Amino acid sequence: MTEGTPIFLEEYLRLHPADLADRLQRMPADEAREILRQLPRPIASDMLAELEADKARDLLGALPSEELAAFFLELPPNAAADVLGGLPVMQRRDVFTKLPPEKVQSIDALLRYAVDTAGGIMSDRFIALRAADSVGQSQERLRGMPEQRPEDISYLYVTDDANRLVGVVTLRDLVFRNADRRIEDMMNRDVRFVRADDDQEEVARQFEHYHYMGLPVLDRQGRLVGVVKASDALRVAQSEATEDMQLMVGLSGEERALTPWSVSIKRRLPWLYVNLATAFLAAIVVGWFEDTIARWTALAIFLPIIAGQGGNAGMQTLTVIIRDLALGELAPGDGRKALIKEIILGLINGLAIGLVVGVLGYLWKGSASLGFVAGTAMLLNQLAAALSGVLIPFGLKVLKIDPALASSIFVTTVTDVAGFFFFLGLAALCMRWLGG
Amino acid sequence: MTEGTPIFLEEYLRLHPADLADRLQRMPADEAREILRQLPRPIASDMLAELEADKARDLLGALPSEELAAFFLELPPNAAADVLGGLPVMQRRDVFTKLPPEKVQSIDALLRYAVDTAGGIMSDRFIALRAADSVGQSQERLRGMPEQRPEDISYLYVTDDANRLVGVVTLRDLVFRNADRRIEDMMNRDVRFVRADDDQEEVARQFEHYHYMGLPVLDRQGRLVGVVKASDALRVAQSEATEDMQLMVGLSGEERALTPWSVSIKRRLPWLYVNLATAFLAAIVVGWFEDTIARWTALAIFLPIIAGQGGNAGMQTLTVIIRDLALGELAPGDGRKALIKEIILGLINGLAIGLVVGVLGYLWKGSASLGFVAGTAMLLNQLAAALSGVLIPFGLKVLKIDPALASSIFVTTVTDVAGFFFFLGLAALCMRWLGG
Repeated sequence: MTEGTPIFLEEYLRLHPADLADRLQRMPADEAREILRQLPRPIASDMLAELEADKARDLLGALPSEELAAFFLELPPNAAADVLGGLPVMQRRDVFTKLPPEKVQSIDALLRYAVDTAGGIMSDRFIALRAADSVGQSQERLRGMPEQRPEDISYLYVTDDANRLVGVVTLRDLVFRNADRRIEDMMNRDVRFVRADDDQEEVARQFEHYHYMGLPVLDRQGRLVGVVKASDALRVAQSEATEDMQLMVGLSGEERALTPWSVSIKRRLPWLYVNLATAFLAAIVVGWFEDTIARWTALAIFLPIIAGQGGNAGMQTLTVIIRDLALGELAPGDGRKALIKEIILGLINGLAIGLVVGVLGYLWKGSASLGFVAGTAMLLNQLAAALSGVLIPFGLKVLKIDPALASSIFVTTVTDVAGFFFFLGLAALCMRWLGG
Repeated sequence: MTEGTPIFLEEYLRLHPADLADRLQRMPADEAREILRQLPRPIASDMLAELEADKARDLLGALPSEELAAFFLELPPNAAADVLGGLPVMQRRDVFTKLPPEKVQSIDALLRYAVDTAGGIMSDRFIALRAADSVGQSQERLRGMPEQRPEDISYLYVTDDANRLVGVVTLRDLVFRNADRRIEDMMNRDVRFVRADDDQEEVARQFEHYHYMGLPVLDRQGRLVGVVKASDALRVAQSEATEDMQLMVGLSGEERALTPWSVSIKRRLPWLYVNLATAFLAAIVVGWFEDTIARWTALAIFLPIIAGQGGNAGMQTLTVIIRDLALGELAPGDGRKALIKEIILGLINGLAIGLVVGVLGYLWKGSASLGFVAGTAMLLNQLAAALSGVLIPFGLKVLKIDPALASSIFVTTVTDVAGFFFFLGLAALCMRWLGG
């Protein structure tokens, strides 16, 4: 242990940068900043690359630009761009004035890609060989390059004079082939790639479907500008899944359990108001039948059962559809098949539950008509659940809105409104026929 | 085009095996089987490795064991184990009698790992070097190995005489170091690994946290038995996310939009019955206050609003907690912090919504007491939503049950029961005070 180094710092130095970032993120920002300053610069830089964007802002926002620039000097441009992208524009410009121009240029180029695109998640650490070079020349080029982490060398991309991607070779090929052989004569020309402005969700889908370890990223001119790794795709997939689950129940952004309440309230309360507005729709339907309920109060008891069952069935359908849409597993025409399937399920579930509710209604309240009305309303509402669970997410998609967006609120509105209408409407008819 | 080959077959041959599998999976099984038989064996084998387990069973179940064995001969053992694992035991044994013993042995070894563990998702295609070998000997060994796909060579693991993992080297090291150098003198001894019986979800978490491209898998004796790749972890993460979303709303298994309805019904209907049972709890609470409703029917109108708002707020909290639990982001003590946060949110949301509901209740029905009762019940129910949204998933976890399991059903039961109790109970008290 170095003399003068506090014990806790020694402990931090032994952590993986990702774990170190975790620790610092959980501390008050000023305490974390104090530790950051004591860390050796390469370790601090590795750690910075692991911070979440908003935490990086809290931690670095208060540091002078000179200090910040020193960290960014050590970071690869893509990590530097991720962190800098979260800082206020003024501070970013200030840091830029303290960095060498080539570094600023490459960070700036990366900052131009939207964060949710292939360009936003790619790394710019990759090895590009020249098509016209020989194997021997390429080996020399490789030998002269700075040490890279092992994960960065599984693919060696080949570019032409204009930096356009033309092929790929394996390091193995490069090692065991004759030194005179030209790269373009041995490379595989059939390279899969993504475009820098491709949506990150689509990129993650490709990784999952084809099990890629890495995919080259091309700009609009076909030039190789970066590489997306499978681990980047994994991170995207996790955050997109979180977002979908949360959007579905009316929660914008990507909230975590320890997101400060002051942030959460802004993401949740507006949707609760939307839900309130839709709940009033259901209340209005109940209001239409106030007289019916006044004369037959047992009806009120069944309202939560009708709404609860419709809502649950609708959520089942909705969750299946939204996930398939997110994973890109629905081909054209599948929507119709899914709708037919859900209608069949709605019918069977409706009969199975309607029968039980009908019988229980009869047994509990001793009224056959109540049993009939509740059972029939249940059946019809299961169909409403099936239809809305399919049509709402597809409808949102057609409108170019995220199919997950608050869709559970919309589906339960349909099942509440339809369920109450069927149930109370049938009850009113029944009372008229039976003379109430 | 080869004469006699139907046009559609030519088209299939140009597809990536994953896309080919997609196509065949969407056809009737007998049609797909016909095409499978016409495909060149290496292509058919690659395609088989991409099939989903249940589709593979449908497609292969009807084929004679000789034909099956021919496919499995070409498949790497881990892909063969995945497909064979889904076939009936009798058929699997039959295929085994037609395969060479060493192949049977390695497939059998893989089949011993549970499908949701590191052993179940790992590949057994990796390159292991001997610690005592020189760089030159290792290069010779590598040269002599059959061609592998480029993604398989980013890491070269080093084992001792008992096959225990002792280090890792990069191919780059191997290529550019002096041929006399011994592997054990240059390897990195600090290798991260997972155990074969580690849960796949935990493995995926490590990939996401540390951005690994691959992780070696060791058995209980520390012997290297396989490698998990980042693309495997991505697939696990996607399917665990699907499962969590679906479990939450009462949907067991991993259902897709085109899962046959006969399968879906078994996964959904039981939970609808659970939901029905819990809905009756809410109905019983309403039943307690039947007299109150009979005297003040406007109350019935507010029931869906109370239930809807409580349910939505509960789902917001629940979704955040479940996702954090799944991603392993909650450290000990975080549960308490999350609970406090949710209570604060519940209070603020409750005041914000309670006030609006109270005022609207007053304006709509012209009754200040109705407004007061509805607003107060709303506030109290938001707190119930916060508490149940946190405590139910944590409670399930303590009971060693998946925290997502049907938790939305339990949370909405709490918010329905509590909401109706607060609302109708307050109304009853109010009527007594005001003399009804």
